[in-house]
Amino acid sequence: METVRVGLLGLGIVGSQVAERLECQRELVTERTGGPVELARVLVRDAAKQRTYLPSGAQLTTDASEILEDPGIGVVIELMGGMEPARTYIERAIDAGKPVVTANKEVMAHHGPELLQLAKRRGVDVYFEAAVGGGIPLISTFKIDLLANHISRIQAVINGTTNFIIDRMARDGAAFDDALAEAQRLGFAEADPTYDVEGWDAAFKLTIMSTIAFHGRIDPDAVYREGIRGLDPVDFRYAADMGYAIRLLAYARDHGDEVELRVHPALIPQSHLLAAVHDAYNAVVIEGDLVGTVLLYGQGAGGRPTASAVVGDVIDLVLSMRKGVDNRISVDVTRPRRVRPIDEVRTAAYLRLHVADRSGVLAEVAKILGDLGISISAVLQKQLIVEHAAAELVILTHPAREGDLRTARERLTALETVYGIPAFLRALIPEEAM
Amino acid sequence: METVRVGLLGLGIVGSQVAERLECQRELVTERTGGPVELARVLVRDAAKQRTYLPSGAQLTTDASEILEDPGIGVVIELMGGMEPARTYIERAIDAGKPVVTANKEVMAHHGPELLQLAKRRGVDVYFEAAVGGGIPLISTFKIDLLANHISRIQAVINGTTNFIIDRMARDGAAFDDALAEAQRLGFAEADPTYDVEGWDAAFKLTIMSTIAFHGRIDPDAVYREGIRGLDPVDFRYAADMGYAIRLLAYARDHGDEVELRVHPALIPQSHLLAAVHDAYNAVVIEGDLVGTVLLYGQGAGGRPTASAVVGDVIDLVLSMRKGVDNRISVDVTRPRRVRPIDEVRTAAYLRLHVADRSGVLAEVAKILGDLGISISAVLQKQLIVEHAAAELVILTHPAREGDLRTARERLTALETVYGIPAFLRALIPEEAM
Repeated sequence: METVRVGLLGLGIVGSQVAERLECQRELVTERTGGPVELARVLVRDAAKQRTYLPSGAQLTTDASEILEDPGIGVVIELMGGMEPARTYIERAIDAGKPVVTANKEVMAHHGPELLQLAKRRGVDVYFEAAVGGGIPLISTFKIDLLANHISRIQAVINGTTNFIIDRMARDGAAFDDALAEAQRLGFAEADPTYDVEGWDAAFKLTIMSTIAFHGRIDPDAVYREGIRGLDPVDFRYAADMGYAIRLLAYARDHGDEVELRVHPALIPQSHLLAAVHDAYNAVVIEGDLVGTVLLYGQGAGGRPTASAVVGDVIDLVLSMRKGVDNRISVDVTRPRRVRPIDEVRTAAYLRLHVADRSGVLAEVAKILGDLGISISAVLQKQLIVEHAAAELVILTHPAREGDLRTARERLTALETVYGIPAFLRALIPEEAM
Repeated sequence: METVRVGLLGLGIVGSQVAERLECQRELVTERTGGPVELARVLVRDAAKQRTYLPSGAQLTTDASEILEDPGIGVVIELMGGMEPARTYIERAIDAGKPVVTANKEVMAHHGPELLQLAKRRGVDVYFEAAVGGGIPLISTFKIDLLANHISRIQAVINGTTNFIIDRMARDGAAFDDALAEAQRLGFAEADPTYDVEGWDAAFKLTIMSTIAFHGRIDPDAVYREGIRGLDPVDFRYAADMGYAIRLLAYARDHGDEVELRVHPALIPQSHLLAAVHDAYNAVVIEGDLVGTVLLYGQGAGGRPTASAVVGDVIDLVLSMRKGVDNRISVDVTRPRRVRPIDEVRTAAYLRLHVADRSGVLAEVAKILGDLGISISAVLQKQLIVEHAAAELVILTHPAREGDLRTARERLTALETVYGIPAFLRALIPEEAM
């Protein structure tokens, strides 16, 4: 059997693990792909840099064309991250007739459908299991196992950094900044945490999953996105009092004419499977019309779990190359799917208000909500803030139109007896949670 | 694209759902397999029987050879269950060059490796995702996604009937017989529940998963198996006092020279993922050297989830037939793997003893354990049974050799001060649980 020569773009945390597995577990890879696979060349920015793993057989290069234009390279693995030059390199590899394995969620969320189209025209495969949920087998589950189903909904905790922070805030009552600092110290958050904390990472992953699950092209920039920076430890306590946990929820639903995609902090019932996801773990709950509810759980990021997905893809790819066939996605991901505007989405809401500590305030608040057709599910009157003669009022609504909830928030803010609305979060009530 | 004609063996609960999906969702199946798929013929025992779903296009037959010997049938789905004639029919289909999709755990646990070998020689595929865990994507996960890993361990709650019963016993303090009767009334248990309650079903599923995960042929009859009939509600309470839940645990570990496979009730820490699996749900925790811990959860049985797996397999199979290729398992499942004898297995244990209510008894008990090198992790002295002047003594040990634990049980039973040992269960202590 002919040796398949692999070119690797990027030798960071994931890249090093992938290189190590390909070189140090050669027997495993050979046995499982039915022949030798050789890591031939690795693109790095700085060939002289000290590294945790220095490939023994592969040649380091700083020139991408030594991989992309070498006809002897049969497979390209892209692990550079970020949009450019990764997107261009993937495109060039496909154009040169080379199949690609990538862990790049940013590129796949924005350009996945067109890259898959291009790959189809060139007769090569693009694999991207590692772009969503690290080693959790998500893409293959949508792509193969659940093909007999109409997928109606995806609910996920799909960003480890934010879940780690949220878990610390909930367990220890830590403030956001302190929990973030701890996450950074332990390597669960980047020095610039924006990408995770503001929900970009989760939104890209949700877009990629929804594209495959709902069969269509989805614009990641149309996904409603709200990060966890505004969360206050007090809301975790109040939520717990009402039987809820808080998570950065990635939520997608197929409405037929439109798809609903949103990423934001949300109250979820403590009995919900996602409430049991702690630390930096990820979990995805999928609902299909035949299969019912399926949950997949694991480490969604990190060098080793992501390398598991990348090398798994490489093995699968080389296997099919050796059979002379493709494993291309059999569903149409090019049909554009319209994302429902956030104002039209229906969701329950959690509001924490600072109000004047006098009678009649709750009636005023309830009237504004009632006029907009928003009904109240639970009310907590909480601690008195003595110095301001103010009370804290917590309201959980039944599901309502998001646009009406926003109007309610504006009208409430305008009330003389309302001093402020420090928290406005969405909630999944138990009846709609599962 | 040519129509693929499908023959279905069996029109029970799962078969009806499969027939309905193939006939009533023809557009979905056509789109996802790239061409028409027709349910052509269905083998039934009684063609005149009233049915929940009567196939509209397919012809019912009571003669298997009308499917197995018809050259116009391109795919055979086996959903008869039980060993014979299912095994023979699968073999005949393969011999006739027809790929097979089956949900038959009994056949696949006992004859999977040889049927896969035969299929390889005949150049056809055998798919069996539905044989383990209903719609939970387990086989494909082992077969494809985790191929870059050395799988070290599988821990599973893989039988819905027993988990439903156990959950009722734990939640409501119900006795086994009452919980079983409720399960039967609700359709979660068969009239003759032996197959589920005695752990056969779980042992077969564990064998199939371990064959694919650990790469080798495993004798299902060598799997240690103990059912849940002996469980007493009181043990659920004592376990809870010590921070444990009880589950019918399916446990497999690759020791390199040997594999360890066992199915029995076990105490597992309440923080363990499997402790959160309620009702008739199933979950499988897989540990790989790269991916870390992955959990897959869903409905492990029932018509619709199992049909999801069967039709998913049919779609995948027809897709690859249309590409003219096979999707055969790329790992060697023919190498025989030796199953470690149960006496040589190491496990913690939970013992409930009825002892004389006098001083010195614990010392006697502790000495017997100590002499065998079994150390005690926790002791509970529980309710006095006044009429017998007896006390209830609960002991949780650290992991020890099972053979030594059994010797200890014998020696303890022989003590004059020990009136009986009504419970002897295994336990996973937190340090070895994850």
